[in-house]
Amino acid sequence: MEFPKLKNDLLLRALKGEIVERPPVWMMRQAGRFLPDYMVLREKYTFFERCETPHLVSEITTMPIWQVGTDAAILFCDILVVPMALGYHVDMVPGVGPRLPRTVKTLADAEAIVVPDVEIALGYVMEGIKQTRMDLKGEVPLIGFAGAPWTLLCYMVQGKGSKDFSEAKRFCFEQPEAARVLLQKITDTTIAYMKAQIKAGAQAFQLFDSWAGLLSPDDFMEFSYPYLKQIVAECTVPNILFAKGSWYALEELKATGANGIGIDWAVTPEMARKVLGHDVTIQGNFDPSRLYAPIPKIEQWTKEMIDRFGKDRYIVNLGHGILPDVPVDHARAFINAVKNYS
Amino acid sequence: MEFPKLKNDLLLRALKGEIVERPPVWMMRQAGRFLPDYMVLREKYTFFERCETPHLVSEITTMPIWQVGTDAAILFCDILVVPMALGYHVDMVPGVGPRLPRTVKTLADAEAIVVPDVEIALGYVMEGIKQTRMDLKGEVPLIGFAGAPWTLLCYMVQGKGSKDFSEAKRFCFEQPEAARVLLQKITDTTIAYMKAQIKAGAQAFQLFDSWAGLLSPDDFMEFSYPYLKQIVAECTVPNILFAKGSWYALEELKATGANGIGIDWAVTPEMARKVLGHDVTIQGNFDPSRLYAPIPKIEQWTKEMIDRFGKDRYIVNLGHGILPDVPVDHARAFINAVKNYS
Repeated sequence: MEFPKLKNDLLLRALKGEIVERPPVWMMRQAGRFLPDYMVLREKYTFFERCETPHLVSEITTMPIWQVGTDAAILFCDILVVPMALGYHVDMVPGVGPRLPRTVKTLADAEAIVVPDVEIALGYVMEGIKQTRMDLKGEVPLIGFAGAPWTLLCYMVQGKGSKDFSEAKRFCFEQPEAARVLLQKITDTTIAYMKAQIKAGAQAFQLFDSWAGLLSPDDFMEFSYPYLKQIVAECTVPNILFAKGSWYALEELKATGANGIGIDWAVTPEMARKVLGHDVTIQGNFDPSRLYAPIPKIEQWTKEMIDRFGKDRYIVNLGHGILPDVPVDHARAFINAVKNYS
Repeated sequence: MEFPKLKNDLLLRALKGEIVERPPVWMMRQAGRFLPDYMVLREKYTFFERCETPHLVSEITTMPIWQVGTDAAILFCDILVVPMALGYHVDMVPGVGPRLPRTVKTLADAEAIVVPDVEIALGYVMEGIKQTRMDLKGEVPLIGFAGAPWTLLCYMVQGKGSKDFSEAKRFCFEQPEAARVLLQKITDTTIAYMKAQIKAGAQAFQLFDSWAGLLSPDDFMEFSYPYLKQIVAECTVPNILFAKGSWYALEELKATGANGIGIDWAVTPEMARKVLGHDVTIQGNFDPSRLYAPIPKIEQWTKEMIDRFGKDRYIVNLGHGILPDVPVDHARAFINAVKNYS
């Protein structure tokens, strides 16, 4: 498929380690969360209708490009489409979160999972990517994404969000062999899914290990890291690995060979550079709650953050997803503070 | 008041830095969470009835001493009794958590708060301490505790539990002066409350900053640290400072002069000792979910943990509160693995 030529390639250049005039900026969860025009679509369609309808995917994905001017688009989708493709249905309960009526409980459950043909099971995602690439008109690159195996295991075992995912951990500690089988099946599916996204038109890729920070360093190395490593090794576009809360494993995360390492706001720019060096791109790490502050404060903090990370080998982002009730002009002030950086 | 003479003083000796035959062990939230006999009391009395009735406080506090054999008792109470004493009512909704019908919204709200006479407002806590000291018969020391100002602000502003406490942060970023007034009033109350607990018979004291890890290092230094420091400075018994998730501020936490620093399982023993050294006592940091593992695993991991921290200047504990559905024999295996350490 022939897509419009890319105009703003700041993000790709930053990930490749090229010298840039200023760092690129985007915001995790910028698509489908805080924009009033998205809220309108939310009233009209269910969550999975929005994910499965290519013109809605494109409309939601491109919205922040036109409305707040980020340097990259990230596909509107959800990490839980992978459990769905593995036969574990997910209900998105408004105001509550995901609920999985059936969960993985035993080794037999894990062994019974069939790695699907993602072009069929998740074909709607690839259609959404193609539509979005056309509609973006080459303005900015499109980032594809997936959830990391450990994070998906959390939901597939616990069956819902949790502050400690203690049931998921219980499963790992009581049945480590079942956990390994499940994690490997998720990994195999994710690799195929990532490749299909890239084939469909994703120009960069981010892997989200949202619940990595709940693990001890030893358990992270056992239940998360080996799978992250496999996925990154198979990625053929500039990529970012974001294992939230895994400050203790930054060196190992870099050793996967990922082009970019996402960090949250608990890690100072100085510590991040000290551990990661200047030969990998760092992405982050503005506390999303700081976007509630008065605009002059947002502008000041953003400038200070770039000063501390350095403009090269750096992608400006939040340290986690944007909060739903952040005023649009505050998000825009954050983006503009990066564009005006000098 | 004359209390029975203390027999097992391992905890106090470990906090003073004395050489011990083995490290002491207790478990955060050991009182009033996982024991079946507690569940019976839970059916009969509301949460605050249990907190406010001295003989119930004593029964719940001493239960883990007789039933699983920990080396210290921690008072059965809740950090939210302080907001209640400040005029902010708390409802404990079973299966849901705390709910505050009225929250702090403005500078005027913060200024209107009156620091109470804790001997009156929280007199029932001191009665519970005296009763418990009598009933403990000197078996082990009694630890008093309070919530840190930042953590209490979280509840007083947000009005309920939250995974990010974004409303509480919004309050701090939008109205930093109001936050400072509120934090200082909580601090003043907490210092008086701590002194009253000590006068009533608490032999050690732990300060819990459960939500410190949600803050960036800069914001921690602004909205949490100055208040922790004031409280520790006024403490006249061996004390432990536990700021969960604040791995980035371990040096600063040590600089408060606290006798013990609590850590969670994200920090390895090696990193903890490297940053904190051997001249402060470290407490932690077994992942509570690991108590679901088979007993031989629990025994092995506990021994390895002590080997890694070293037996001196160390208190064995979990890295956060014990989970409600942990089997009692698993908790007992954890305690016994420490007692059998050699």
